[in-house]
Amino acid sequence: MRFDVVVDVRLRGGIADPAGATIERALSALGYEGVTEVSVGKTVRFTIEAADATEATTQAEDLCASFLTNPVIEDASVTVEAAG
Amino acid sequence: MRFDVVVDVRLRGGIADPAGATIERALSALGYEGVTEVSVGKTVRFTIEAADATEATTQAEDLCASFLTNPVIEDASVTVEAAG
Repeated sequence: MRFDVVVDVRLRGGIADPAGATIERALSALGYEGVTEVSVGKTVRFTIEAADATEATTQAEDLCASFLTNPVIEDASVTVEAAG
Repeated sequence: MRFDVVVDVRLRGGIADPAGATIERALSALGYEGVTEVSVGKTVRFTIEAADATEATTQAEDLCASFLTNPVIEDASVTVEAAG
């Protein structure tokens, strides 16, 4: 079976986020008020072949921890659903 | 009222995604089989001050189109919810 996986990667709390800080400064300079707590993350989407959703989730989490994210500075949340 | 906004930015279909292609090649070289259609996107999270959810959504979509994304090559989906 094929599963669609979305990995949402965010910087851990307390880790400097220069891209977010730059956007926040730029927005007020451009006249957008009231926008705060800007943070920038990344998403990795892919399709995985697995026997069932549990196996797909395990494989995707393994990929995340070993390859797609840096667990020292990043948190990842994995969403798996059957490919339509 | 404050609203939490998540902007999910993806490359439009047909636009080259070198980061995704590199991950896909690397995964098979590393022995992970069955992972295909890898694509990489970004997320921008922020808090916005607005009278209601409709105004917050309008402001966030305006920000997206004018500043956070490149509408020529990227699609954005905006999710707004009241800050907890």
